[in-house]
Amino acid sequence: MPIDTALPELAAILGDRISTSRGDREQHGASESYFPLTPPEAVAWPETTAEVAAIVKICAAHGLPVVPWGAGTSLEGQAQAVRGGVVLNMTRMDKVIEIHSEDMQARIQPGITREALNAQLRDTGLFFPIDPGANATLGGMAATRASGTTAVKYGTMRDNVLAAEVVLADGRVIRTGSGARKSSAGYDLTGLFVGSEATLGIFTELTLRLHGQPEAVTAAVCAFDSLAAAVETVIATIQMGIDVARIEFVDEATAAAFNQSAGTDLPEKPHLMVEFHGTPAAVKEQAERFGEIVTEMGGADFAWAERPEDRTRLWKMRHGAYPACLALRPGSMAVVTDICVPISRLAEAVAETRADIAEAGLIGPILGHVGDGNFHAILLVDREDPEELSRAKWIAARLAARAHRFGGTMTGEHGVGIGKRGLMADEHGAGWQVMAAIKQALDPLGVLNPGKIVPEPAVEAEAGIGAGA
Amino acid sequence: MPIDTALPELAAILGDRISTSRGDREQHGASESYFPLTPPEAVAWPETTAEVAAIVKICAAHGLPVVPWGAGTSLEGQAQAVRGGVVLNMTRMDKVIEIHSEDMQARIQPGITREALNAQLRDTGLFFPIDPGANATLGGMAATRASGTTAVKYGTMRDNVLAAEVVLADGRVIRTGSGARKSSAGYDLTGLFVGSEATLGIFTELTLRLHGQPEAVTAAVCAFDSLAAAVETVIATIQMGIDVARIEFVDEATAAAFNQSAGTDLPEKPHLMVEFHGTPAAVKEQAERFGEIVTEMGGADFAWAERPEDRTRLWKMRHGAYPACLALRPGSMAVVTDICVPISRLAEAVAETRADIAEAGLIGPILGHVGDGNFHAILLVDREDPEELSRAKWIAARLAARAHRFGGTMTGEHGVGIGKRGLMADEHGAGWQVMAAIKQALDPLGVLNPGKIVPEPAVEAEAGIGAGA
Repeated sequence: MPIDTALPELAAILGDRISTSRGDREQHGASESYFPLTPPEAVAWPETTAEVAAIVKICAAHGLPVVPWGAGTSLEGQAQAVRGGVVLNMTRMDKVIEIHSEDMQARIQPGITREALNAQLRDTGLFFPIDPGANATLGGMAATRASGTTAVKYGTMRDNVLAAEVVLADGRVIRTGSGARKSSAGYDLTGLFVGSEATLGIFTELTLRLHGQPEAVTAAVCAFDSLAAAVETVIATIQMGIDVARIEFVDEATAAAFNQSAGTDLPEKPHLMVEFHGTPAAVKEQAERFGEIVTEMGGADFAWAERPEDRTRLWKMRHGAYPACLALRPGSMAVVTDICVPISRLAEAVAETRADIAEAGLIGPILGHVGDGNFHAILLVDREDPEELSRAKWIAARLAARAHRFGGTMTGEHGVGIGKRGLMADEHGAGWQVMAAIKQALDPLGVLNPGKIVPEPAVEAEAGIGAGA
Repeated sequence: MPIDTALPELAAILGDRISTSRGDREQHGASESYFPLTPPEAVAWPETTAEVAAIVKICAAHGLPVVPWGAGTSLEGQAQAVRGGVVLNMTRMDKVIEIHSEDMQARIQPGITREALNAQLRDTGLFFPIDPGANATLGGMAATRASGTTAVKYGTMRDNVLAAEVVLADGRVIRTGSGARKSSAGYDLTGLFVGSEATLGIFTELTLRLHGQPEAVTAAVCAFDSLAAAVETVIATIQMGIDVARIEFVDEATAAAFNQSAGTDLPEKPHLMVEFHGTPAAVKEQAERFGEIVTEMGGADFAWAERPEDRTRLWKMRHGAYPACLALRPGSMAVVTDICVPISRLAEAVAETRADIAEAGLIGPILGHVGDGNFHAILLVDREDPEELSRAKWIAARLAARAHRFGGTMTGEHGVGIGKRGLMADEHGAGWQVMAAIKQALDPLGVLNPGKIVPEPAVEAEAGIGAGA
């Protein structure tokens, strides 16, 4: 076995920071989603860029895959070592290297989580806004091009990674981008590595764009009698150019889940949750304009969260939506979908999805970052019932097809992983072959996270995976 | 000659829309900069994507380079056919295909200019903000990752191209991106083609992100006694999070050039020109905050341009800076430099550059989009004096090195072309080889704009070009 010959070489570098114990392997072979366990052959805890480069070189020489691991919170199985090999647990590389307050930038190691980073930024007047629900690592967020509730104002990881240090498939280390806010100096390599799910390189350092902590913040929740009224409110808000920092939709099932898990007493109706960031005057003006639209659309139960503790409670509740929805059906597991459509098609897309969920007879709360046209259905299925899983997959496949029919994308923020690789040809057509050519050029031996993103027909058929969500 | 055997095939498709006349070839072999004339072997005027694909296939079969041409306004010789071949004049593909007002998007052909696009958007309440000085085509702007005065608020072409149709080097046509505002579905191919200077593919359609025409706009000019005071004002403005739509610096030489060419009577001092976009209340608030900083920094002669015609005059003057500066020394030509640094290093970078220009004894106005840390020196040299050109190149080389020393980039918006290819290794290190691997994967025969962006040592040495600005 290649791992047996590689292990002594890896141990010579890592000492006891490499493990083949069943516990470590299984812990690093699981996902937050419905995918089967894929324990790697070993787990390593590198502490420096040089160690990551050395591990990659050894693994490449022995034909072993390398898969980096952050917090293990991705939703499409991105960090699962589906071809075996060595998983790199990056959480020991979790330092803030440098904060440039005056340039509103931070250089960090990839293993730091977003909450830990923001804790270190607290006294600088700056913050890093991107917030997928989980307390993910920044390296994982960059690798999956994560976003979340604030992308409507601050963009996604694509917009907030300025520069990177990357270990390539042959162990070379490169630096992409710079500390400048923009550049025209050739191919945008930073942008290519962001979202590549560690199939082209492994991040060992990131330069992030930070943002000023807003002077004033206000947030609100309001209820609507119909899904259509809530979604039309979002569309009008975006089209009028109201500068929302967050605008989240949750349907009646999600409201019920919050009531059950967070002890709230929201009416079991569709809701919007919004937040505004800016100067006190600007926040007031934007909130008033938003309030006028809500009134016009028949929204009610309008509650402003002016105090920081009220807002913290609100967004904690929102970020807890996934476990709250899972608790609607104890013991179930979830197929989490994630499409993004042009905003003009949002109401139609959500309504059709609701109809599919009803037809399939599943519990499936719908919620999302609707200011971007991005929404999720959390489809609850019995772990032991393959027929239920297949109904959930039917809904997911129809959602992806709907995204394409409406000119959108099958994934707004969760990425491809193993859940959506089988849909890449539908999404990209011949463009998928272009991705394959790039992968082949940068990782001809298939060392980095093989079995992800790009086509690989022979191996795929054999393993019976990646056939679509 | 390959062109002789290719021509009948090309004429069979294009009829009289292909020319080998000396006039057409020389017109499409010139640049706005100091580079020597490089007439292609033929010029074609395609009208459809299918024609572009067919031309590329024929040229690939005959070993002929293909170089697209928009308005011919790039500043680093990007559209010059340095290895011969066929230049594609894209200006007949200049339609707006579709405007999606509700999604704030437009699908366009690449040959339309930014002014023509905005004329067609006028009644929609939307506009496309990116404004390099010249009235460039959108295809050229995407290919060079252009920006301009408004990037500080609206981003660059990287941020405003959502999707594209691209003809590859083998004539295949792919679509990248979608109508969704964000996506995590694999490699960001749109972002890879934007800024690739037509070395990886030729744009035949773009989906652009549009922005709402601001409800209120106000602009101002103010003078400062020193360069340092002007630049410190910019730094404080950005760091305080004041939402400027434009913040431009011009030095005393540029002010003098405006006075001479535009008939203004600006004091011959460093100036800032700013603009704010938003609601009336927000614009007022931001402008007041900016005014306070200016006062604190000793700025004077503060003139607000409230009326649209005053603003038009102001920005027309700003966009005319290049010819105005050239007119400071009649008959001269310009070496135009373009670096971008972290904003904390801006004052130092501009001051050192001024010292270099003084040492070289050249006229070299400095101006720039300083909100992004991006500035230019327009170095005027005698066309007939190679020694002056070499002094200008000395300044340019030191500027690029300074950008790197300060953690920035050698080009914020003008791109690489033939002027800066020799500096790519300094900028990217081993990352330049990664770019080469991508080029090799997507265009192994070197059909698309050869001699640009990526290393190609053998040919380069022979042709004696690309050795750095």
